[in-house]
Amino acid sequence: MQPSLGIMYALCFVAIAIAFAYAAYLIKWVRQQDPGNPQIVKVAGLIQSGANAFMRKEYTILAGFAGVAAVLILLFLPSPIWASAAPLNNVKMAIAYICGTVFSAIAGKLGLFVASLANARSAVAASKGIRPAFLIGFRGGAVMGLAVVGACLLGVMGVMLIFGDTSILLGFSFGASSLALFAKAGGGIFTKTADVSADLAGKVELGIPEDDPRNPAVIADNVGDNVGDVAGMGADLFDSNVAAMAAALIMAAALDGATGSANVGMVFCYSALGLLASIFGIAMARIGKNGNPTRALNSSTYTTTAVYIVLTALATLIFDGFRWEIWGASTVGLFVGVLIGIVTDYFTDDTKPIVKHVAHASKSGPAFTVLSGISYGFLSVLPAMIGIAISALAAYKLCEPLGGQYPLFGISMAAVGMLSIVGITISNDAFGPIVDNARGLAEMGGLGEETIRVADELDSAGNTVKAVTKGFAIGAAGLTVISLLGAYMSEVNAALVEMGRAAEQIMGFDIMNPTVFFGILIGAAIPAVFSAMLMLGVDRNAQRMLAEIHRQFREIRGLREGKEGVEPDYNRCIDIATQGALRELIPAGLVAILATLLVGFIGGVEAIGGFLLGNIASGLLLALFMSNAGGLWDNSKKYVEAGNEGGKGSEAHKAAVVGDTVGDPFKDTAGPSINTQITVVSLVSSLMSVMFIMYSIF
Amino acid sequence: MQPSLGIMYALCFVAIAIAFAYAAYLIKWVRQQDPGNPQIVKVAGLIQSGANAFMRKEYTILAGFAGVAAVLILLFLPSPIWASAAPLNNVKMAIAYICGTVFSAIAGKLGLFVASLANARSAVAASKGIRPAFLIGFRGGAVMGLAVVGACLLGVMGVMLIFGDTSILLGFSFGASSLALFAKAGGGIFTKTADVSADLAGKVELGIPEDDPRNPAVIADNVGDNVGDVAGMGADLFDSNVAAMAAALIMAAALDGATGSANVGMVFCYSALGLLASIFGIAMARIGKNGNPTRALNSSTYTTTAVYIVLTALATLIFDGFRWEIWGASTVGLFVGVLIGIVTDYFTDDTKPIVKHVAHASKSGPAFTVLSGISYGFLSVLPAMIGIAISALAAYKLCEPLGGQYPLFGISMAAVGMLSIVGITISNDAFGPIVDNARGLAEMGGLGEETIRVADELDSAGNTVKAVTKGFAIGAAGLTVISLLGAYMSEVNAALVEMGRAAEQIMGFDIMNPTVFFGILIGAAIPAVFSAMLMLGVDRNAQRMLAEIHRQFREIRGLREGKEGVEPDYNRCIDIATQGALRELIPAGLVAILATLLVGFIGGVEAIGGFLLGNIASGLLLALFMSNAGGLWDNSKKYVEAGNEGGKGSEAHKAAVVGDTVGDPFKDTAGPSINTQITVVSLVSSLMSVMFIMYSIF
Repeated sequence: MQPSLGIMYALCFVAIAIAFAYAAYLIKWVRQQDPGNPQIVKVAGLIQSGANAFMRKEYTILAGFAGVAAVLILLFLPSPIWASAAPLNNVKMAIAYICGTVFSAIAGKLGLFVASLANARSAVAASKGIRPAFLIGFRGGAVMGLAVVGACLLGVMGVMLIFGDTSILLGFSFGASSLALFAKAGGGIFTKTADVSADLAGKVELGIPEDDPRNPAVIADNVGDNVGDVAGMGADLFDSNVAAMAAALIMAAALDGATGSANVGMVFCYSALGLLASIFGIAMARIGKNGNPTRALNSSTYTTTAVYIVLTALATLIFDGFRWEIWGASTVGLFVGVLIGIVTDYFTDDTKPIVKHVAHASKSGPAFTVLSGISYGFLSVLPAMIGIAISALAAYKLCEPLGGQYPLFGISMAAVGMLSIVGITISNDAFGPIVDNARGLAEMGGLGEETIRVADELDSAGNTVKAVTKGFAIGAAGLTVISLLGAYMSEVNAALVEMGRAAEQIMGFDIMNPTVFFGILIGAAIPAVFSAMLMLGVDRNAQRMLAEIHRQFREIRGLREGKEGVEPDYNRCIDIATQGALRELIPAGLVAILATLLVGFIGGVEAIGGFLLGNIASGLLLALFMSNAGGLWDNSKKYVEAGNEGGKGSEAHKAAVVGDTVGDPFKDTAGPSINTQITVVSLVSSLMSVMFIMYSIF
Repeated sequence: MQPSLGIMYALCFVAIAIAFAYAAYLIKWVRQQDPGNPQIVKVAGLIQSGANAFMRKEYTILAGFAGVAAVLILLFLPSPIWASAAPLNNVKMAIAYICGTVFSAIAGKLGLFVASLANARSAVAASKGIRPAFLIGFRGGAVMGLAVVGACLLGVMGVMLIFGDTSILLGFSFGASSLALFAKAGGGIFTKTADVSADLAGKVELGIPEDDPRNPAVIADNVGDNVGDVAGMGADLFDSNVAAMAAALIMAAALDGATGSANVGMVFCYSALGLLASIFGIAMARIGKNGNPTRALNSSTYTTTAVYIVLTALATLIFDGFRWEIWGASTVGLFVGVLIGIVTDYFTDDTKPIVKHVAHASKSGPAFTVLSGISYGFLSVLPAMIGIAISALAAYKLCEPLGGQYPLFGISMAAVGMLSIVGITISNDAFGPIVDNARGLAEMGGLGEETIRVADELDSAGNTVKAVTKGFAIGAAGLTVISLLGAYMSEVNAALVEMGRAAEQIMGFDIMNPTVFFGILIGAAIPAVFSAMLMLGVDRNAQRMLAEIHRQFREIRGLREGKEGVEPDYNRCIDIATQGALRELIPAGLVAILATLLVGFIGGVEAIGGFLLGNIASGLLLALFMSNAGGLWDNSKKYVEAGNEGGKGSEAHKAAVVGDTVGDPFKDTAGPSINTQITVVSLVSSLMSVMFIMYSIF
């Protein structure tokens, strides 16, 4: 059958409509569940309003930032408006940019909203058994998954329908990245600021339990889980998904040329099928009364994967011009994603030897917890790096017989394939913070031992399943940035042709070219600098918040004694964490962007090619290292707390807590933000390519 | 004047002869100094015999390893002996390899010998004032510097004179690298094994002071300083120096072709002048009676630099065919080296704000010491990465007008330039452990407060000056590996021409080529894996040694009580540290080499190009991070111990000690060994290029 773009857009509309309708149904369903006793309703309300306060503030600052960026885009991109043959493109780009931020923001807001409904209800349901509690937590997360993927597909399709130009997609994608930078890195600083200062003030200084309501930072701590893990993660994956689609569509359009549309159609078709497969996987997820929640979550991923592979194979069979080689590339990507997840799991799962080694090392003191965690964290990068390397190579080699730019298109389709099932990935990921909050609410709401035990079991399942979903996320990010490198080269060459300098077109980036090498070394340093600035930001921000906690205990009478009716000023702490997070985030983001501009204006487009490569290689390395080491320390602490190596209160426990504290900003702030940093830098490079061609020194 | 190779070789002979004569004079001079009281003589003797035991064991194992490697080289390199047109080349290569190990071993042994004479004498001299103590420490280190550089130049010249083929130099260089791997990484594991277990057993478990003679690990700890810092560092820089010369000579010979010899002559001329400049710098180093030792050490570096620049300028003026552009490249390299040193100093000097920040963070507990140290360690990589990037770019651009392979030759000459003054660098570096030992001996020998204070001042100067010399070492290593990449490409192309496949010659390594990209990702992961294996090795080894310490305290009666005449079995501890170090080192080295072979046989020569690049980029990043973070923690601890943030015994001090313990294997085991790992991998790649061309899958 001859595929027309019309059919594919229709398919996308159907998938989006089902996704949104299903999400609406799930929201309604979650709302109908029992919200619990007044104490739970009150605390859940505090968390919800705190999260809203953060989001409001974040979106306000982002609006200012986006406004400035939109004006700059209008003036300079894709080429300076005064020198451009088509100044209308600048207007389109600026509009697409704003749409990118808005779409992502709406999806994030919606997910956060339902997550903060689901946490309390899941806690209440836990008193009735694991089955209903699981379902509420999972369906709450699923709304986020459906909203993010639906919005992504809708936005990308909208840009294509309205502007009919794939390079405008870079503007949309950059908008999504800007938001992800704020949501993921800003949310990451927020959550760790609150976590660290609540812990330090509570346990270390005042000697009160972690979740004691007298602690002014306790609500901020719970808010952090939502804004960092739910909203931040959603924005991050929205960003990756849009970037992967944009890169694939740019290459597809170049391959199709003026006549065909098979490749562009294929990208949309695969994405729509991925969304449908995710919906199917979500609808199927269920556990028996005494079933295993981890297995239920993982099997929903595997179901989705299988459905996606079958559906895309059918599509490839039906439609002329859809290539089996490309289908193979996307399938290889998916399989490698699963494998990365399984291997990563080995390094962070507390039933496996590595976590036990680190726990055992803790007996010799915190230095050994740290050293062994860093060492195993370093080791853990190898399988994922090999996996990404092999899937890129395999995708390329599979599509090489097709000739031309098909091999690179194959790599981008491996990324699209992996990210097409992102709907289920996000659902599983958002499940974690929801049931984590549910556990806290069950404790604060006095729902009893058995309820807490059920919530604990769900929480632990959420942690374990994260390793597998993270495998997808990191693998997909790695492949996406490779295809962004391809998209960047396409953009540069298109611009050179347009400027009548077709002879200067670049065929690649040679390592032996010193400007490329120059870019590589500086690009490799940026993720380290970026993550250092975020971690130092957490520290500074936590100091500010500690000062505020001390002030409240000093000035609010009866607070320390826990007098009836005396409450700390939770909002003030949320305010401080919010403002500080955004204040600390902006310099880090600017350093990454300025470094890109400097390298580009000094070394030109080839230096930028090297810069992106160095950034990808060291970024993947550090992101994997920090995420895995953080998870490893976290689980080692839990392993000790479960009574091993001396159990709670022992020297090993104290050391394990130090490891966990080091690991927190690793895994929740710096590590995952590096993905976003790489995407931002890649997009800035593509967008600025004409400027670099026109104005670079070398 | 027309330069002939004969003149240059004569110049080298003169420089080498002066260096060896001067070294012999310095050894005699050191021996004539007062060796101190019987207690000092005894302890110094124990340290010396322990160091000898380690070296003997190391060289024994190395001999076995080198024997196997030599046979493999004989069979397979440069091409399989049964398929080779010139099987004699395999014999030459194997001989050169063995010579490389032997030359480096002799230089290391000599340096260690004089260092263990100088430490006691410097301690004794410290009782007479800082001036004589400084001179003994410095001259002891200088012997090492002179021996290493003299042996390097002699060896490289010998290979050229005897075999007349630059590519045989790769064999010599690989020999030097094999030894460096054992000496630096093995010594690094040894020294930290001893340090950690002496500390844990002494301070934590038994509650006895650090240097208490009852502790069976105390002599091993002192031996570690010598084998890790003196012998290891010497082998490391011998290796870098040989590699830089080999890379430069391979490119120079290709440029000279069959007719000229100007470029080869220039490499030898510059190297000989560097050695002469270092001798001058060593001879000039002196401090006034109340002078500042740091200034004296740094000024010897600056003097040498200035003399080198003037001498090379004169040579360039005198000899026809010596290019000013190349002189410029070498001078830029030197300046950038100095700049990197100064900036690095900012991150590790305890009079500068960063060290104070980390000390202050320690007040909140060890997690914050670790987090802030890691963050600033990450930040500290940026200036050095920029410096290396800029010096490579500048060297290339300066030589670009000369055309052909001159730009790459320019980069390699920047590295040779930097390393030509390595004589003074090693002198300054070896000064540190000598005076560090002197301080310990002054304490154990009961030389009194004032002597210890003088020794302390020298020790602190040694630490500070290390930052500047490390700037040279890292900058030079970065540039060297770039030129090794160039040498690798030359080797591949020469082999292809020889095999009648000239059309397949490679012009570079394109990032967008998926086999190159495949290599990059795996290459980037290797330094992380290598350093993780070394650090885990330290940990395992320390556990073995702890068990031995416990055994001795259990079984040797009267040891714990310090009964007169009862001594622990120091040698048993040295044995364990030695055997364990070598046992832990070998798997790490093999992983790096096997990964190279796997990538080469899977992806071929282009994948290896990418592999080397990824290895360089992530290797520089991690080496800089680990070295600087380690230095930062060390000095933060010292800063707290000097009475700041609560001083000794405070919570901040405990936290700072945790940071220091984490930092020790960072800066003394893993960080500096990464340089060697990169060189080993680069050389294996160049040596195996023909095999990869013949037998790779893709």
